[in-house]
Amino acid sequence: MQEIRIDLPIEELPTKWYNALPDLPAILPEPKDPADGTPTIENNRRIRPVALNEQDNSAKRWETIPGEVLEAYLRIGRPTPLQRAVSLERHLGTPAKIFFKREDVLPTGSFKLNSAIAQAYYAKQDGFEALISETGAGQWGTAVCIAAQSYGLGAKIFMARVSYEQKPYRRYFMKLCGGEVHPSPSNLTQSGKSFLLSDPQHPGSIGTGISEAIETALAHQGKYAYVSGSNLPHVLMHQTIIGLETKKQLAMAGLKPDTLISCVGGGSNCGGLMLPFLPEKFKDPDSLQFLAAESDSVPRLTKGVYEYGAGDASGLTPLTKSYTLGQGFVPPRIHVGGLRQHNGSPLVGLLRKEGLLDATALSQEEAFQAGRLFSLCEGILPAPESCHAIKAAIDSALEAKEEGEDRVIVFCLSGNGFFDLAGYEAILFKEGHQC
Amino acid sequence: MQEIRIDLPIEELPTKWYNALPDLPAILPEPKDPADGTPTIENNRRIRPVALNEQDNSAKRWETIPGEVLEAYLRIGRPTPLQRAVSLERHLGTPAKIFFKREDVLPTGSFKLNSAIAQAYYAKQDGFEALISETGAGQWGTAVCIAAQSYGLGAKIFMARVSYEQKPYRRYFMKLCGGEVHPSPSNLTQSGKSFLLSDPQHPGSIGTGISEAIETALAHQGKYAYVSGSNLPHVLMHQTIIGLETKKQLAMAGLKPDTLISCVGGGSNCGGLMLPFLPEKFKDPDSLQFLAAESDSVPRLTKGVYEYGAGDASGLTPLTKSYTLGQGFVPPRIHVGGLRQHNGSPLVGLLRKEGLLDATALSQEEAFQAGRLFSLCEGILPAPESCHAIKAAIDSALEAKEEGEDRVIVFCLSGNGFFDLAGYEAILFKEGHQC
Repeated sequence: MQEIRIDLPIEELPTKWYNALPDLPAILPEPKDPADGTPTIENNRRIRPVALNEQDNSAKRWETIPGEVLEAYLRIGRPTPLQRAVSLERHLGTPAKIFFKREDVLPTGSFKLNSAIAQAYYAKQDGFEALISETGAGQWGTAVCIAAQSYGLGAKIFMARVSYEQKPYRRYFMKLCGGEVHPSPSNLTQSGKSFLLSDPQHPGSIGTGISEAIETALAHQGKYAYVSGSNLPHVLMHQTIIGLETKKQLAMAGLKPDTLISCVGGGSNCGGLMLPFLPEKFKDPDSLQFLAAESDSVPRLTKGVYEYGAGDASGLTPLTKSYTLGQGFVPPRIHVGGLRQHNGSPLVGLLRKEGLLDATALSQEEAFQAGRLFSLCEGILPAPESCHAIKAAIDSALEAKEEGEDRVIVFCLSGNGFFDLAGYEAILFKEGHQC
Repeated sequence: MQEIRIDLPIEELPTKWYNALPDLPAILPEPKDPADGTPTIENNRRIRPVALNEQDNSAKRWETIPGEVLEAYLRIGRPTPLQRAVSLERHLGTPAKIFFKREDVLPTGSFKLNSAIAQAYYAKQDGFEALISETGAGQWGTAVCIAAQSYGLGAKIFMARVSYEQKPYRRYFMKLCGGEVHPSPSNLTQSGKSFLLSDPQHPGSIGTGISEAIETALAHQGKYAYVSGSNLPHVLMHQTIIGLETKKQLAMAGLKPDTLISCVGGGSNCGGLMLPFLPEKFKDPDSLQFLAAESDSVPRLTKGVYEYGAGDASGLTPLTKSYTLGQGFVPPRIHVGGLRQHNGSPLVGLLRKEGLLDATALSQEEAFQAGRLFSLCEGILPAPESCHAIKAAIDSALEAKEEGEDRVIVFCLSGNGFFDLAGYEAILFKEGHQC
């Protein structure tokens, strides 16, 4: 039975997150204020819960997960299963074992809740009344609304206007879970107004949403805790619950991974899966591959430059160093909202810079095709972002076949594709509604 | 930890289904051919796998689950968790413990796969090339497509035209999983053509879909295995996996249920949860309540008549005896597709007739409100059908509060509501798109 699925007993749920900062091969480049003198670092500190600021700079290797967060982890379905893609292996005729970590079964359909819950907990501790954040297609926003609700907090979400209008379902979901959702740019903030002044039909983006959320939080300090869904060290640390569970599950089956794969956007499911395996990676770098799958429409890790850049559209965020396509880069309108950032996580960038992380850029079409094959074989519908990890896993398994290698491949199934069927239809059958 | 969630270890997955037929307090009324002399019983027998016909009349109390089906159960996430609604209990201030069985985590978002997989397995054994069936909103159709695919079979689905046009997502899902989906009525069958002749704008229904699927299967005998998502004894038997797991999970926590609750449409999640508890119910009828929650728009169990009736629109199905609102009853267009049948399962009908099953009829609005409260408390989005069970569970918990009773209430969370957000929006916020 363990050949098909490895369940971690509830009692084995990890009780500490892993903080990779003290173990990195180089010091993580610090955030910087922009040249215009805006005190972005200080501003951002003030609108976030204290513990999260501390976690971003912590030297402690292990951070105890608060009891209330552990309880919430149980309620959302943690530990999640580690499952083997037996049919896919058979279809590929590969000697490799392909495992996938099922973050798709969490109640919002993606891994984002792992950090949203932790951030909501700390916001509550600090006496904030509500969470505030941005969202692109809505995965993170939904997680924020549900997490806020579970600690009795409000939630205000700025959602890219184009998604707000074209993808009403995630917005309904957020509203249903007690959230207040605004299309960005909105008339509620100065930055929103100025975006609309420059273009009354402004489609918005995660970047405009960040600007509006931060501006609102700064204007009502102590009321709104500003929370981020990716990119920052504390978010990646919360997500290490994914890799820590995976490690225990592989050990239960007496297996050692050869390749760990995830898609990469802001970097949090990537860091979450891989960082806990850093000690093994350091011990024998050639025996364990970390592989990030990105979109070839937004090829940060494969074609970007390692330099400082801002994350939002108005310069309200500190500059951070990572692989970037430049602040002027406008991501094309692909059906893979989660991989559309122009810059990435400093921590993931450092792994790449130091030669610890391989990367592959995949087209939307080949990713969706891989996702379809996975659906047909395993009966599970993956999110378009996760399809990139699946395609990379398939390629790795075929490589193993060529080389006659009994490789153990583990990828993160970061989310389900229930809200992405229009994308599948449009890409694979060229006739989807844009709804 | 067990206070929040009870996971059944993989090794404890039940290996036999429970067949209630030999334990019923009366003989289940047999199907009958209609007065016009159509040999519906014989016809239906010929288009179904042999094992399923046998299971409908079996005297064996336990049916061994084939190894390949057990393997598939593991892959779809069985055993599913039994979770406690701690926040909902706290919100209600009830001394009752409310548990819910998480069938929402299965890959198609509902419990339907439990039987679809078994039926696909037997169809494969008998050498059929494809499965054929009908679907209303698409839950069953999706399960059929995924189950067929996993045994290398094709799938042809007739989907009520109104849902085919208004709810494209489930249709995309079925197509993606290798299924062939046709709006019903279609021009592919005589019955379809005659429905269209009588009304070129015919909206279709599950009933028209059944007629078209059976006609097609009869016209190509040996090619298509006709499969049903509910109603028949074999379907309910496959679904007993739900109740058998629940029983083991409650035993792990040292608990005995006082009330078992499910929504009821065709009766398969209801039977699946409750039938395995029949021995306890017989031993002490007053100490264990079986409670079915139906829609007050389709009040079969509370206002229907116990008599013979047909299930489809052209009289191609045998007449079966259960509670019915009459073949002429046109279910109103509610957002709860799964509860819209005019007649129900003979087995559920018999339980009701014999006084073993209580029933409550709930309005769409109160059900959606209950579902919203559940979402806010537990962070899990229920299907509209499941919302009826939730409302009944809440009412039972409030009754327990009034009476100061430490009741153990267990309901079946039969599916998630990811595809039903337009319904939530329309009912709760009166402004949803009809998409």
